[in-house]
Amino acid sequence: MITIAVDAMGGDHAPRPEVEGSVLAARELGVRVLLVGQPAAVRAELAKHAPAHLPIEVIPASEVITMDDHPVQAFRKKKDSSVHVAARLVREAKADGIVSAGNTGAVMTVAKFLLGTLESVDRVALAAPFPNAKGGVSVLLDVGANVDSRPEHLVQFAIMGEVYYRATFGHRRPRVGLLSVGAEEIKGNELTREVYTRLKKSTVHFVGNVEGGDLFSGDVDVIVCDGFVGNIALKICEGLAVSIFGLLRKSLKSSLVSQLGAVLSQGAFKGLKKTIDYTEYGGAPLLGVRGVCVIGHGRSNANAVKNAIRVAAGLARARSNEKIEQELSGAGDLS
Amino acid sequence: MITIAVDAMGGDHAPRPEVEGSVLAARELGVRVLLVGQPAAVRAELAKHAPAHLPIEVIPASEVITMDDHPVQAFRKKKDSSVHVAARLVREAKADGIVSAGNTGAVMTVAKFLLGTLESVDRVALAAPFPNAKGGVSVLLDVGANVDSRPEHLVQFAIMGEVYYRATFGHRRPRVGLLSVGAEEIKGNELTREVYTRLKKSTVHFVGNVEGGDLFSGDVDVIVCDGFVGNIALKICEGLAVSIFGLLRKSLKSSLVSQLGAVLSQGAFKGLKKTIDYTEYGGAPLLGVRGVCVIGHGRSNANAVKNAIRVAAGLARARSNEKIEQELSGAGDLS
Repeated sequence: MITIAVDAMGGDHAPRPEVEGSVLAARELGVRVLLVGQPAAVRAELAKHAPAHLPIEVIPASEVITMDDHPVQAFRKKKDSSVHVAARLVREAKADGIVSAGNTGAVMTVAKFLLGTLESVDRVALAAPFPNAKGGVSVLLDVGANVDSRPEHLVQFAIMGEVYYRATFGHRRPRVGLLSVGAEEIKGNELTREVYTRLKKSTVHFVGNVEGGDLFSGDVDVIVCDGFVGNIALKICEGLAVSIFGLLRKSLKSSLVSQLGAVLSQGAFKGLKKTIDYTEYGGAPLLGVRGVCVIGHGRSNANAVKNAIRVAAGLARARSNEKIEQELSGAGDLS
Repeated sequence: MITIAVDAMGGDHAPRPEVEGSVLAARELGVRVLLVGQPAAVRAELAKHAPAHLPIEVIPASEVITMDDHPVQAFRKKKDSSVHVAARLVREAKADGIVSAGNTGAVMTVAKFLLGTLESVDRVALAAPFPNAKGGVSVLLDVGANVDSRPEHLVQFAIMGEVYYRATFGHRRPRVGLLSVGAEEIKGNELTREVYTRLKKSTVHFVGNVEGGDLFSGDVDVIVCDGFVGNIALKICEGLAVSIFGLLRKSLKSSLVSQLGAVLSQGAFKGLKKTIDYTEYGGAPLLGVRGVCVIGHGRSNANAVKNAIRVAAGLARARSNEKIEQELSGAGDLS
């Protein structure tokens, strides 16, 4: 049975959604969950769910990393945090992966240092899945702010993204694109032109350069970029979506007739929200670490936590790290 | 009287919106317009508007650059295109600026080579204005795919953006931000860290690093970035807005009740569309060329063309190029 260590203290509303999501996962997904956090708080929450027969265990961790903590400081100083303890469980092979909805930078730092990176990987990458216009999922990586990447890093991101996409979304040969400023091979900057040449010769199903608008077109499954660009892209998407919904809400309140219209349209808005709801996609995996690490949004609800556990378990079950090592050692001549 | 040369053949529906927008501008803005294009087509359109008393003149140009033309090829081969002729009018001081809704790359290329760049400017920059959550306008530059920028280029973009913002949106001391992956000075890549240091010492009202989400927050007026990042950012915004509206439309058609709701909400949707309507912002200026060049969206309607003429005339009237030269020579020690 796959075992996932869940950071019970990470999210904005911890430990409620973490515990509820873990209960759902243990019940529906056949996964064993180690709930890591302050025992009293976690047990109080757990007691609400009559989990006696479920494969859930509470593992104590005395400290909590908050969203305001500086990642590196938190890594160094809060050595008994729920994230540290969860990472150690993976390192000691007591769990196959970690799920956390906590401070992304801190989780990345702890995972990177406590788990270490795979042998053939130079830099770990954070992959963000999001819905596209064709009703599927596209994945952008790196969004974790690996700045000043070299060409070989982006080639590794492409291969890791492909393995993750295959394991998670069941697509045997995902289409991999390189984020740039024009479709032609010569378009782009020094970095992307070099990466283009290398990806053409690689084992991935490379469909060439894609542009910003292609993030949502559904014509490409895995989109590769430097972490500086990816992080900006991700935050633009979040910001713009929030802005459009805010403006829409304001517009809909502008007259009585619109208000009535808004009430009648409510079902449709909920449908839309569900379509673009990140909670369905199960968080962002940190690819390239030993073991599995999936980072959810701080606002994760129980459903989001459950889905993050599903993704983590899927990556462990598919032996994705072995596949990454295999693919990367095969791609050795490209870097 | 300010004279603007309008490329009458550029947009997707040329010359109708170009001519109509020029008539509106000549009537409402006190601007003289030179309509550059194939005389028969332009005159036929012009005849619909009884423009006898208006300061509008038709200037013949035999060739048309299409959206499918390769920018450099179009520049080299279609020497009598409406864009070439309009640029020559500016070079010969017969017009103060060009407005075109044509092939952005081709207009940029023609303007750059026929007009030349200002003496203190190393690279021209395309600036994209867009609405923000506070009901104002924020401007992102460069979005014109100046890839592999050096620090001094971004400092120049900041100064040019400030001058344009002041002239166009009447804000005396616009807030200038640097697009990066975190607010702290040390966040970012090699390029932005160096630019941060230089902007701190510059004359612009530098508010520090901003993140992708800040594009729409309204907390910053001018946002500076490398053209690779800016072009991707711009296309993400276009793509995501189109996706969200598409999904919303689909959702609203999903049931009879929602359909009724959608009809009743129509006014509100129109209000929202107007709020985020690029036609109100008058196109993207190409900053750093001698003379003024404003590039509209290919889909520009008459209102968009009129507003682009307004922006071009405003930049000419404010002597923005002189100000850019002044500011940049003052910033000489920063580059």
